[in-house]
Formats: sequence, C-alpha cells, structure tokens
Amino acid sequence: MSRISLDQAQAIVAGALKEGRAMNLKPLTVAVLDAGGHVVALAREDGSSNLRPQVATGKAAGALALGMSSRAIGEMAEQRPMLISAAGALSPAGLIPVAGGVLIQGAGGELVGAVGVTGDLSDNDEKVALAGIAEAGLTAKA
Amino acid sequence: MSRISLDQAQAIVAGALKEGRAMNLKPLTVAVLDAGGHVVALAREDGSSNLRPQVATGKAAGALALGMSSRAIGEMAEQRPMLISAAGALSPAGLIPVAGGVLIQGAGGELVGAVGVTGDLSDNDEKVALAGIAEAGLTAKA
Amino acid sequence: MSRISLDQAQAIVAGALKEGRAMNLKPLTVAVLDAGGHVVALAREDGSSNLRPQVATGKAAGALALGMSSRAIGEMAEQRPMLISAAGALSPAGLIPVAGGVLIQGAGGELVGAVGVTGDLSDNDEKVALAGIAEAGLTAKA
Amino acid sequence: MSRISLDQAQAIVAGALKEGRAMNLKPLTVAVLDAGGHVVALAREDGSSNLRPQVATGKAAGALALGMSSRAIGEMAEQRPMLISAAGALSPAGLIPVAGGVLIQGAGGELVGAVGVTGDLSDNDEKVALAGIAEAGLTAKA
Repeated sequence: MSRISLDQAQAIVAGALKEGRAMNLKPLTVAVLDAGGHVVALAREDGSSNLRPQVATGKAAGALALGMSSRAIGEMAEQRPMLISAAGALSPAGLIPVAGGVLIQGAGGELVGAVGVTGDLSDNDEKVALAGIAEAGLTAKA
Repeated sequence: MSRISLDQAQAIVAGALKEGRAMNLKPLTVAVLDAGGHVVALAREDGSSNLRPQVATGKAAGALALGMSSRAIGEMAEQRPMLISAAGALSPAGLIPVAGGVLIQGAGGELVGAVGVTGDLSDNDEKVALAGIAEAGLTAKA
Repeated sequence: MSRISLDQAQAIVAGALKEGRAMNLKPLTVAVLDAGGHVVALAREDGSSNLRPQVATGKAAGALALGMSSRAIGEMAEQRPMLISAAGALSPAGLIPVAGGVLIQGAGGELVGAVGVTGDLSDNDEKVALAGIAEAGLTAKA
Repeated sequence: MSRISLDQAQAIVAGALKEGRAMNLKPLTVAVLDAGGHVVALAREDGSSNLRPQVATGKAAGALALGMSSRAIGEMAEQRPMLISAAGALSPAGLIPVAGGVLIQGAGGELVGAVGVTGDLSDNDEKVALAGIAEAGLTAKA
C-alpha cells in the first residue's frame, strides 16, 4: 500500500478524536493528507474556532513539505527562524512550526501521508495524532 | 439549532458518499461548511484528483458567499460573467459556478451551513449533495 | 511501482526533447511531476522564453488537479469557461487549458505523475509529451 | 558566452548529484537558473520532500535577486532580519537565507546564472553546488 485510503484517513480521524475525548482536551480539528499534501479527510469538533481547518492542514502539509514532523520544524525554527519563515512563504498550504503534524508510513515503510491536529496544547495535539495513526494500524514516521 | 454540528456534517458526508456509490458515480469529494463558511467535515474518495478538496469547498463556500446554490451562481455567471468572476476573486475559498453546492437549513429554517460535492457531472454532484442533506435529517435551502 | 522516480522523469524529459528535435520544433520546456503535483525533473531548451517553466509545470499540475489531460481541460473550458477559470484560481501551480499536459500511469495502471510540454503548437507539445512517456517505458493515461 | 545553456545546466545538476552520492548525503534537489532567475534545469532525487523544488529554486533565485550567495544572505539576515524578510516578500520565487545557493560566472567573468541545492545540511548543500559548477567547467562567483 502506498497511498493512504479514505478508509484509513477516516480511521485516523476517528481514533484521534476518540483519544482527544479520553484526554478531555479542548475541541480538536484533525486533517489527514496524502503523500502529495492533498486533504483526504478532515473533521472539526464543535466549538473549534474558524481557522482550525487551515492550521491542522498546515501542520500536516508542512511536515510533508520539509520531510519532518511539525515539532521538528518548530525546533529548527528556534535555531533558524528566517529559514523556516522563508520556506513557509513558499508552501501553498503554509506550514505550522509546532507539534501536532506527524508523517505516516505504510506497511512497507513508505511515506503515505501526514496527519495534523490542532485545538489543545501542541504536545497534546501530537499525542492525539499519534493515537489516531495507531488506531488505523499505521505507523508514525519519526 | 443554529450551527451545523460535526455529527450532522459527518452524516451528510456519509449519506452523500452512499448515494454516490448507489448511483455508481466517479470518485467524489464532499465538503460540509458551517454558516460562517468554515469546513466542518471533508472526505475525498480514493481515485479523486488533487484539487477536488478545493473544488468541493469552493462550491459550498461560494453558495454561502452569495446566498444561493452554486447552480444558481452558474446561471448568473452565464448572464453576468464579469460579476461572478469579480465576486469570486474576493472570496477566500473562491466560488465554483456549477451545480453541486447546496445551502443547508436547520429545524427552524435558519441557515446552518452548506455542502459541496465534486467528482462526477455537476448535476450528479448536486443530487448527491441533496441526498446527503436528507440523510442527515436536514433540509436543503433552495 | 507507484511513484515516478528521478530516473524515469529524466528519461521522459530526454525522450521528449529528442522527439522535439526530430520534429524540428521550436525550443521546448518539459516538466515531469509526481502524482502529488511536485516537480521531479525539468529542462528548458535554449531560446525558450521566461515563463515556460511555469507553463510546462501548469499543464502537468492542472492535469493532476482535475484528473484529465490539459487537452481535455481545454475542451471543458470551451464549454464551461467560468468553471475552468474558477478551478484554476484555486490551483497553486495554476492550470493551462491547452494540449501538452498528459497523465502518466505506472506498470500496474496506477497514476504516478504527469508531464507538461510547452514551446511549440500545443498539438506538437502533446506529441512530444507522449513520445517522452513512451521512451521511458511508461504509459499515458487518457 | 553570456547565458547558461541547457547542456551546462544539466552538467551542473549531474555533477552536483554525483557529489551528493559520493558524500552519502540525504536525497538532494538541484535547480539551475539563468541570469534572469528563470529555471533551466531541475532534478529532485527520490525520497525528497514536497517543497524541495521551491527551496532549491529559492536559494538560487535569492542569490540572483540580491547579487550574493545564499550563505551571504543568511549572514546578512542575522544582522538585519527585517531587511531580508522584506526583500524576500518582493521576490517572486522567494529567497532562502541559508547556504546552498551559489552564483555562476561564465568564461569571461560575466554572471550567467545560479545553482541552488537543498536536502542535507546547508553547508553540504553548498559543497554540492560548488562541485556541480566545477564539473560543468564553470566558476562560482563568490
């Protein structure tokens, strides 16, 4: 399997939201993108603010743009803020340099997409993203 | 009830995709937006092309932008193309002037959001949108 | 094989340019994109004008955006110009509604990318694109 | 000779990628632009992330935009970040303020273009850029 399917993407969304409720987090938005950076599934919980779809998508798209988690992009941004700003300006879906965007690999280890979560503290967003990937039987790519 | 909930939005998406499969249509993308024009739920079926999330969102956002179905916007575009082009340029999510974007009203007749469908012939996209709204127990706003 | 490799992309470019010279065409620009719409290889022949990289990329990216050759997009544009304008405005790499952008499928029939050619008459651009795909041992997707 | 030819550009690309493999670097993307800042040749190695074409192009375009290597732009950015941000916003292909973008001069010392490399640490990207220029029999402009 090399492309994330809608079924897999919806399983990630459902698993992420289930984890969010179990952790009693603020309302979350979850976006799952294919390896090309195009949205496959998205869900925004009631009470989420207006820009959350773009922020969730930006976390995942940014991870795919640079080939690393959005947490790693954030760490790079602390060292080299001008670089990350400049790269973000070139990314059509932007990039969001905090935790919550995680790359996803398929059964054969190949990159199949990314998930982005926003709504609570970014560390919690990332935990939820990882739970969603695991629920769908896929693996996070470090 | 004045805002479309995630549960309602996901019911519209599921109902729309079920209708699409029953009609044996090409792979579809369905986006449900709240009354403010912000995505609540989106699903892109396997085999859909890269721009379909933006096209589905554009059909729904355009309907909300001008207060009429995207079919009606298309009819207006035939009479007044410059107007519709100009309006589209002002809309952050664009607008798509063909059938498939339908306004949704809640139990009390108030506008609660819009659904946009793309992937097959636009007449079929619209049929699927209407089926999704009905499945969720809501009403299409003409 | 589900992702176009650099070797395959460069073979398409070389094959296309070889055909262009054999047909004695004007200077050509050839862009090969992966299925996600991201450039893998690009070459612009001497004497080509400044915007040709974007035009070649736009023909291929547009084909991937809507799931049809740029010739088919052009035909749709004749019937529904407002729709194609609106969709183009939503596509980060644009779309170019004339022949020359062709989808590429891999050994198993799966979509692996697209090639875009510009520089001569669009019918000739398309012939060159098809020759490049064939040279690389891949198949054009109608 | 005053404009970089496609043959020279492809020689730079090939030389750069050969050096990258010899140094066992991460997958690289190499873009060669003419003196006007327009792409002549580009190659993205397998396993490269989605935004690498824009980043490689941005390193080279930025060097041509300001008349100095992207390393020099990065040094200036540390002293005067607002200036470099503002300049970058005016550049159609952006600019990337870290090493890897190098100006190229022809036989007579005239500026003929620039190469941009991304994918590994920026110091290594720059080494690869310099190797590519040398392989093509051209000279880097400090």
